[in-house]
Formats: sequence, C-alpha cells, structure tokens
Amino acid sequence: MLLIMSCRISNIVHKILVSSIRRESTNSFGLVRKKCVRLSLPILSNTTQWISTDHRLCSQKNMPDQNSFASRTHTCGEMRCTHIGEQVTICGWIQYQRHGLFVILRDFSGLIQILIPQDESAGHLKKTLFDLPLESVVRVTGNVVPRPPGQENSEMPTGEIEVQAQDIEVLNICKKLPFEIKDFVKKSEALRMQYRYLDLRSVQMQYNLRLRSRMVMKMKEYLCNLHGFVDVETPTLFKRTPGGAKEFVVPSREPGRFYSLPQSPQQFKQLLMVAGIDRYFQVARCYRDEGSKPDRQPEFTQVDIEMSFVDQAGIRKLIEGLIQYSWPEDKGQIGVPFPSITYSEAMQYYGIDKPDTRFEWKIIDISEGFRNTDIGFLRDALSKPEESVRAICVPDGAKQLKSKDIEFLRKNSRAQFNQEVTVVALKPDGSWKSPLSKLLTEEQKHLLCQATQAKAGDLLLLTAGEHEPVCRALGKLRLQCAELLESRGVAVRDSSAFHFLWVVDFPLFLPKEDEPDKLESAHHPFTAPHPQDALLLYTQPDKVRSQHYDLVLNGSEIGGGSIRIHNAELQQYVLEKILKEDKRLLSHLIEALDSGAPPHGGIALGLDRFIAIIAGAPSIRDVIAFPKSYRGRDLMSNAPDFVAAEDLVPYHISVSWPAVSQEAEGEQPEIPASGKGFNHT
Amino acid sequence: MLLIMSCRISNIVHKILVSSIRRESTNSFGLVRKKCVRLSLPILSNTTQWISTDHRLCSQKNMPDQNSFASRTHTCGEMRCTHIGEQVTICGWIQYQRHGLFVILRDFSGLIQILIPQDESAGHLKKTLFDLPLESVVRVTGNVVPRPPGQENSEMPTGEIEVQAQDIEVLNICKKLPFEIKDFVKKSEALRMQYRYLDLRSVQMQYNLRLRSRMVMKMKEYLCNLHGFVDVETPTLFKRTPGGAKEFVVPSREPGRFYSLPQSPQQFKQLLMVAGIDRYFQVARCYRDEGSKPDRQPEFTQVDIEMSFVDQAGIRKLIEGLIQYSWPEDKGQIGVPFPSITYSEAMQYYGIDKPDTRFEWKIIDISEGFRNTDIGFLRDALSKPEESVRAICVPDGAKQLKSKDIEFLRKNSRAQFNQEVTVVALKPDGSWKSPLSKLLTEEQKHLLCQATQAKAGDLLLLTAGEHEPVCRALGKLRLQCAELLESRGVAVRDSSAFHFLWVVDFPLFLPKEDEPDKLESAHHPFTAPHPQDALLLYTQPDKVRSQHYDLVLNGSEIGGGSIRIHNAELQQYVLEKILKEDKRLLSHLIEALDSGAPPHGGIALGLDRFIAIIAGAPSIRDVIAFPKSYRGRDLMSNAPDFVAAEDLVPYHISVSWPAVSQEAEGEQPEIPASGKGFNHT
Repeated sequence: MLLIMSCRISNIVHKILVSSIRRESTNSFGLVRKKCVRLSLPILSNTTQWISTDHRLCSQKNMPDQNSFASRTHTCGEMRCTHIGEQVTICGWIQYQRHGLFVILRDFSGLIQILIPQDESAGHLKKTLFDLPLESVVRVTGNVVPRPPGQENSEMPTGEIEVQAQDIEVLNICKKLPFEIKDFVKKSEALRMQYRYLDLRSVQMQYNLRLRSRMVMKMKEYLCNLHGFVDVETPTLFKRTPGGAKEFVVPSREPGRFYSLPQSPQQFKQLLMVAGIDRYFQVARCYRDEGSKPDRQPEFTQVDIEMSFVDQAGIRKLIEGLIQYSWPEDKGQIGVPFPSITYSEAMQYYGIDKPDTRFEWKIIDISEGFRNTDIGFLRDALSKPEESVRAICVPDGAKQLKSKDIEFLRKNSRAQFNQEVTVVALKPDGSWKSPLSKLLTEEQKHLLCQATQAKAGDLLLLTAGEHEPVCRALGKLRLQCAELLESRGVAVRDSSAFHFLWVVDFPLFLPKEDEPDKLESAHHPFTAPHPQDALLLYTQPDKVRSQHYDLVLNGSEIGGGSIRIHNAELQQYVLEKILKEDKRLLSHLIEALDSGAPPHGGIALGLDRFIAIIAGAPSIRDVIAFPKSYRGRDLMSNAPDFVAAEDLVPYHISVSWPAVSQEAEGEQPEIPASGKGFNHT
Repeated sequence: MLLIMSCRISNIVHKILVSSIRRESTNSFGLVRKKCVRLSLPILSNTTQWISTDHRLCSQKNMPDQNSFASRTHTCGEMRCTHIGEQVTICGWIQYQRHGLFVILRDFSGLIQILIPQDESAGHLKKTLFDLPLESVVRVTGNVVPRPPGQENSEMPTGEIEVQAQDIEVLNICKKLPFEIKDFVKKSEALRMQYRYLDLRSVQMQYNLRLRSRMVMKMKEYLCNLHGFVDVETPTLFKRTPGGAKEFVVPSREPGRFYSLPQSPQQFKQLLMVAGIDRYFQVARCYRDEGSKPDRQPEFTQVDIEMSFVDQAGIRKLIEGLIQYSWPEDKGQIGVPFPSITYSEAMQYYGIDKPDTRFEWKIIDISEGFRNTDIGFLRDALSKPEESVRAICVPDGAKQLKSKDIEFLRKNSRAQFNQEVTVVALKPDGSWKSPLSKLLTEEQKHLLCQATQAKAGDLLLLTAGEHEPVCRALGKLRLQCAELLESRGVAVRDSSAFHFLWVVDFPLFLPKEDEPDKLESAHHPFTAPHPQDALLLYTQPDKVRSQHYDLVLNGSEIGGGSIRIHNAELQQYVLEKILKEDKRLLSHLIEALDSGAPPHGGIALGLDRFIAIIAGAPSIRDVIAFPKSYRGRDLMSNAPDFVAAEDLVPYHISVSWPAVSQEAEGEQPEIPASGKGFNHT
C-alpha cells in the first residue's frame, strides 16, 4: 500500500500543478491548495446526517485549517458551489456505492458524492471503487462540478456539487465489520464498547468529542489568556488519604508502601495558593473507586480552579464568565448572572440540593389550611413545632397518571423516606377524588386549591411530618412525576433549555451517619465557615453555614467549590475539636497555612457530566472516547486483567484469592441489554 | 481574620469610589479599577530579582487581566509612572521592612515599595506593619506617588514609584519559616521538596511554571484553533502490556485483576485515527516505573499528537510550526525548518543518536592516513573491512586538560566501550606530545593535523576498531571534554542557544540484547518501515530502516514519533514473523487496522524536559510543581506510605514482606547533598 501511495503522488502533483489557479500554498505532500478556505454556510437542518460537526461548532471566522500538512486539499464536507471548477484531492471512507455511478465518501467533516466517469478509459477506476467493501479508505482526485439540475440534494450540505473522479488510490481495504456503521447506534452498549473505534465514527460521537475539545479549549483561553490563570499539573501518584476508601492504591517498589490515585487535587491547589501562584487551573484527571455505580467512571475529569484574594461572589462571576465564553454557538445563548438559591430554600421548595428549575411544581407549605383540622395524622403532624404539611401540584397529573403509577409513587415514598403520601386527583369537572374528599369542607378544599394553584385535571400530592423527610419525599415525587408525564409525551421540561443555578449557604457540618452525635464535614474539612456564623463555630457548630457553593445545571450538580480556611488556628480547631481528626495526618497543610497563606477559594467543574448535558447525551460514556463499563471494565482490551505472579514480585504484593473463586463470574457479560444503567442521576 | 476583612471592605470601597477617576470597571469586591492596564515595559535586566515573570513572558498586546474577580485593583509588579495619582489596592507578602519607613510587598508579578506615613494619626498603620513577621500577607490601599528625585531604583521595574499607604489589613500572619525565602534556592534539594510551597515562591520557580503554562497554552492554540486538532482524553487505567515491566499496576476489586498505568497513549491514539478523528492531540499524563533513575519521574507529561493522511515531512512541518508558534518571546527567535540528519550520520559524526550540535568537534575518519602504517594496533584495525581509525579534535584541549583529566577520559572509554584511546597533545609550538610522536613521520603528522584541522594547543583523541564502539567512545569523549572545558571556564556551547535537530532513518529492528540472533523493535512494533526498504523486510529485516524520527534539542531527545503501520497484514507479519510475539495479545489492534484504518503517523514531545531546557533549569524537577524525589518519593506528604491491611482487603492483595525488613532503609534521607543526581542526560 505504501508503495502504491508513493508512486501515485508524483502523478497527482503533476496534475494539480498544471491546473493551479486560485491557490496559494502547498502542503508537505506538494499538494497545492487554497490556504484555509472560509465558507459561508447555510443553516443546517438538525436531521441531516453526517453534516460537518465542525461547521456546527465553530464560527466561520475562526475556522481552523483542517487540511494543513495532510495529503488532501479539502475535507469531504467542506466543499460548496464556490469550489466548482477546482481540482481537489480528498481522503475518506466509502459510505456507500450507488448504481455503479456514484460513491459517497465520508470523513469527519461530512459526506461528498464522487461521480465515476463512465467512459471506457476510466474502466479501472470504476472497477476499483465498486469492488471495494464499504468503509475502505481511498484518496480521490477530481474536479468539483455542479450536480445536474434537479439532482441537487438539499438535505446534504455538499448536495449541490459532486467530484468528478480522475484518479483514485486505495489506501486501505476494510475487511468484514461486526456490523454496519450506519445503524450502529442501535447496537448494544457492549458491542459499541468492544468496537469503540467504529462507534466513534458515528456523527453523534464525532460531534460529542469535538464539542468537548472545543469547549475545553475555550475554557483554557478564558482562564489563561483573558484572566491570567496558570495551568499547573499536579501529581496523580499521591499519599493515601486516611479513610480514603474510594482511592485506588498503587503499590510501589518499597515493601508495604503504596501511592494512591487522588479523588481531586484539593490539597495541591491550596498549596499552590500558599506558593503564591495566585490563579491556578487544571483540566485534572481524578480517580474514584466506587465499584459499579451507573454513570460513574473510575477515572473522570474536572476543570479545577483556585484563586487567591477572592470571595464567593468573585468565584461565581468567574465561572459565569467561563461558561458564557466557552458556550457552544449552536446551543443558543445563556444569560448571566445565574440565579442563586440557598440550600435551605432549595430543600424547602424542591426537596433536593440540586433543583431542576426547568419546571416549577414547587413544594408548598399548606400547614395553615389544616391548623384546625380533625384529620388525625395531619393534626398530629401540626401539633409538633418542627412538623408541617406540604404538597406539590402536578399539572395534568390526574389526567395522565394511572392508579398504578400513583401506587408506585406512594410505595416508593414509603420505602425511601418513610413518608405516607395522600393523593388528591382533580377530576375534569373540578371535583375531588381523594381519601381527604369527605374529611374536608368545600371551603377548605377551595383554600387548598388556591394555595397550590391546582386546577381541574391536576394531581395534588400531600405529605406531613418532619421538615426534611417531607421535603425530600415531595422533591423525589416531583421528579418522578415529571419523568412519568414525559414518558407519556407531555412536555414538562424543555430538553433544549439550560437552567443554571447556584446553591449556596450549605451547612458546614452534618451529623455522622453511623454516629449522629458526632459531626463530619458536609463537603471537606477545608471549607470556610460563613462569615456571619463565625462565632457559632465555637458554640453551635451544627448550625454553622459554610462558604461552599454548588453549580447545578438542569437538576445535575456540575460543579462545587468553596472559600477555604486560610487561617491555621481555625483549620486546626475544625480538624481537632470538631471533626476529632488526628491532626498529625494533615500537619503539612497546617504548616503551610502558617507560612503566609493568602485568603483563597476555588471550584471544580465535573467536565464529563457538564459536556454530556450540553450535548444532550444520555450518559457520560457518550462524551468520553474510551469509557469503562459500569463495572469498571474496558471491554475493548478486557482491562483489568490477570497479571503473572512474577510481575507482582517487584511490588511486594500477592493476590489473596477468595475462598470461592469469582473468576467465572468475572467473565460473564456485564452490560445489561437495555441502556438502563447509563442514565444521568 | 474573615471578620476583619469584611468590616474593612466597605471602608475601602468608600474611599475608592470617592476618587474613582480614570477607572472603568468594578470587580466582585466592588473595587473600581481600570480594566486591564496595558503597559509599555522597559527592557528588564536579567539580574533583577522579582521582576514580573508575566511581563517577561507575554507580549503587551495579549496581557491577561490579572486582577479580575479579586480584592485588589493592581498586582504589585505592574505599577509604573503612568499610575501616579491613582488610588490602588494591592495584596501581597511582606518581602522586607526598612527603616520603619518602607515595606516591600511582593506578589507573583514583582515587588512594590509601600511608604508608611510618619504622622501620628497613622501610627497604627506603622505599628501593624512593622510588627508583622516577613512573609505575612497584607492588603494595602494607597496612592501611587513618584519617588523623590534621586531615590528611584532602576534595578526594580516599579522603582520610579511607591505606594503611600492609607489603609492596611492583615490577611494572615506568617509563623516562623524553616528558612528565609530569599536565599531559599541555596537550600538542599530535600528541604526544597519538603517545603515545596515555599520553594515555589521563588522568582525562578514562578517563572518556570508560568513559562510552562503559557507554552502549553500556545501549543493548544496552534493545534486546536489553527489546525483543527481534537483534544481527546484517553484512559490511564488500562490493560497491562505483556512484558510491560515498567508499568505500575493498580489492583481492582476483582480478585487477581489489575489495571496498569500506561507509559503512553500509543494504542489509543492509533485507535482514534481508525475512528476517523483525523487529528488528535492530548497533553497526556504518562507513567513509568523505573525505580530510582536520576531526572526521571514516575509520572511525566507528553504532548501527544497523531494525524491521518500524513507523511513524515508533514509531521515534521507540523512540529516545527508548533514549536515556533509556542516559542517564548524572551528566548529569541528560532528558525525553521530544523536541520535533519540520518541515524547513521549521527553515529558517524557524533557517536550518538542525539547529537548536541551547538558545537562542532565532529568525529573524523582518519583511516586513510594510516593505510601503510607500521603501528601494530592501527594496522590490525585497518586490516579488517569493518574497522577504522577515527579521531576528534578538542580545540584548546591540550591547553586546558591536565594529565589527570586525560587519564580519567581514557579509563572511562576503556571501561564503558572497551576502547583504547590514543592521545595527541599539540604543544603551543605545534610539536607533539603523544605515544605516536616517534612512530609517525612529520609528513604523516602534518596530514593528520590537516585532516582533523588540529592546531597548536589542541588535543586529538584517536581510537581504532569496529565502527560502532569507536564512534560511541569518541561521541562520549566529545561530550566529556566539552563539560571539562566548560568547568574550566572555556565557552564551548552557547547556553542561550537552541539547536533543534531531526534524527531520521533509524533501524526498524535491533538485535535483542540477551539473544542477539533475535530481533526486537528499535522503538515499537507499530512503526512503519521506510518505503525504500519495504521489500527488505521479507529478506533482511535487520537492514530495514524505519519511518521513525526523533527531535533533539541541544543534545537531549525531546520528542519522537513515526509513521505507523496501517495495513493489518504487514502489522501481523511484523508481530508474528519478525518479533515472534503472541499475536492474540494485540488482536484488537489488528482487527482495528482491518476495519478501514487510514494511513497515519504522530509524535510525542516530552514536555518536562523540553520546558526544562528552554527555562535553562538544571533538572526537570524545576519545571514540575510537585515533583517526586529521585527515589519516587513525595517528600512533602511522604508518599508512598504504608496502608492498613484492611484497606487492601477490597483489592484482594496482601503485602509480601521481604525476609529482612527494609523499612529502616526506607526511612533514610534519600536526597544526595549535592544536586549531582538531578542533571539532564
């Protein structure tokens, strides 16, 4: 193949040099071509397959030169009417052949139709091309000509032209594929992962990976070029955090000593502030060993940011600017500043700390309406000061949800939150279908509908009890009802909308799950207390709010950060007196704070999830080139794999085989047939 | 501290708002300031300490806004005469206090002199500031004023002005430091590593990390924005390569199964080409477990590049453009294209595959002059067809090198290459001091001096024997003599010069070290053979040249790559017939090549070494924020460290303790007192 290529080059060069009109530069192959053709593009329909992802992603002003240094003059997808009359050389994959007359050639930029001359002298071209299996790779030289009138294809960006082939070289012949590329997205997740290099040829995966690359590039421009952030790489072979149960260990050649792969560069980014770096960022690879959680990856990427002499508002403004600057043009505009909500408001109105604000359905406190009620469980709830009765109203819920659905929701609420849900279905005529119907007066019913803005066809879900479980249960019901309605075709959330939201004023500490009388950090021990609560720290630490902030997009947490403690005594107090940690374990951090640490704060954005939401991808696996399966496997190479015992000797470890070998189990196919395990949430 | 900050803010805001002239934007602290002040900078002397590294690194046109989102209006180092009359707020570290009158404040951008009002009303300011230990962190608000005539400091970029303090806040008090910051660079490597966050405050480390960040940013702009490369992240938890003795293993939760940390994304980058990504790059973290090699790091970074439809010349042009585009302005200009040399020429003239071409001293074949010699060992050597007599001429070598030096060189050559070195010292009067002196006629001596261009005061070093050891020995002597002369103050190599060089036409295979009748890949099994040698592959594979290329800078290899094999049959032939590998181990790669792989090639640049050479740093540790010691330790956190046995249970491994515990040894200080272990080479 290499020999064929070499012989043909001189031939092409000759041909092209002969007709070198309107061309300005040569590439390394001696191919003469116009330097960086700038196109004016028609608006592309969303349904068109194989349109140029790059054309969708970048403005025409900043088009990179996709043909520099390569043995082609143009990409398949970039040619338009303006190229008519030019001789071009293109490289690509055979997408399909038609009528012995046309070959459709594909590269990352799109499709182009190649017209095969039908005269006898070009018989060899025809034979070569039509004998080739699909997905074979060829290089074609020819002239750009208009398609005959009436044969234009308006669905195809290159549909007004075709390339009349003059010379063809076969660069590689494709052997039998495990499936056809075009309907590949319908294949099972396991097959997609096993042949990931074929899966990545799909329009959607090309779009996703290019979107990711371009957004990351814009983020770096914003941080580095506009705001003076320094891109610093931090180690991934680090010391194990005490109790870091989710950290992978890496044996070293020193007996018994292990590195660990850190979950984030938290300590390093703070030390860089102490070091006077002033503004740090890193697109950082992080590691978390969570076994088999759906839509989590053992390695993931965060855009990690820290800066000195900043407050919460500063970080938020920085991030709003960052996201606005890097936002893809084809996804509409986003407004800044992003709205902000406190943690306690989020819990009160949405029952969750990452509210999906694309739709309303807020939780409403309807305690007032039941102050004088005779209904036992409501009266009981209201007799205690910390309890209340709350509800959500699901518009059209009575119309759309069946008894079976409602039974499922109630059961779920009982199991997960220990909350009884009382249901009011408002019939089309406005009358009530509810166990409460006979217990309430018309007046009370009217007041309830007024408070919840419920109307005919809506569904009211009520719970009573302590604040937190009541809100959490209703928050969950809100999301479940939205999903159920959407599955019936009701538009609840605009899938093309992007609702950003800051959640602030989190509690600094939470009771430990297993020892509720002890406190643990709600986020991490380096988070600074809220300035207004600074004194509470010494009296009622459980009441202290923190300077932590989360960034939420469409109900997913895509980032979180905080202003950090920069005072060594405060840090020591938190570690020693409140968290009862062994302070020696973090003594190097205390020592660092004591050596002139500036006030500082930062944030980390979860890049995988963020890009997945923007791309509209169902799973973070769709924005990662080579993801692991939900059990942490690489299905292409079959990693992790067995290692010879002698290869473990230098690391002074040996395998402790379980009593019953799980090897057989390990070999089982692990991907469920449905894509169920691969959703967000 | 937080409370103090908050109270003072309103005060500052008030003051600044009152005098808000010539200012255009507010930051999140409400501090009004000029948006991105653009300065014209004087040329800075190299000796000036604490000059703004950013000013050295970036052109004034593209100055980022270093003050956005922060609680300051200016950085310490950016202020000039043009700021006189402005009220500014700056944050920084106390560098030193003088005469109860001045405080010198430092941040990453440089130094500024703060003038403390001497009137009684400002007594508290004075007391606060002069009581503070050095390296404490303060925020100062004041007016920019000119220094009194005659008191300007021309060594200091901000030396024409000072800031008359109006308000001061203490942000953090520095406790006793383990050493003074200013002469910190003279501390031992171990101390520098243990207190890395202090070491990084030095001007040189700030410069190095910012240089690195900026160059990487420019590289990304070039690749992504100008040439359409896609930044794709590849996994670092991968499958162990068979025989990958240098790969760290990472135990998984499946008994006996391990991931490994790959040495490079080689397989993934090729698969991305098969996937039609067309142009890939990544600033990739790579891992290599080499135990304790000087100037190697267990984790390191490479700029990893691959593209489709490209040849060797294309990749070289791409990289030349990349380096030229990202080259720092303060390091002079570099010319392209870079010169190129074949592997065999490199060996012939420099005795090494990474010649330092900053100086000549080439190896000269002087066999002709000895064709009819009576000197036994020379005659013997020349009687065999593959042997020769060669020499290098060390200018001024006779003048500078002592007998002791020469004895050291000869001994070394004998030990390392089994080569006897014959020495000719040309005395100031041109006469010979050499064992050959009496054995050669004047005519022969004259011819030899002519051939080697030796003149009075020079030193000739001769060896005879087989081509390779002769050249390798002389190549080593060439470098050793250069170092010796430089240590005596003779300028051999220009330390500010940057000599790039491509080395090409490497052999594709080399005899295995332990089984010389078998072949192994000179680089890796995916390297394509040279097109001119394609047929030799089937007859004399040991004679085949490859399409591998190395990029050398000042005698260090900073990059390497190749055009890859894209034909499945050829790849299979190489793996199976030549390398005798078990082809099943790489079956997924063969399968990928068979599914429509485009011709492709790439390169990887070793970022750490490249930046170290440009920065003029003695070790790659000087361009890595948190490097490991030469034994792979993090001396700040003491990683790797012991892990509780129960933490290993989920990974089904246990420690195999050696018979004699090496724990005590592991605790020993491991950094040599001198920096000897930390050089390049």
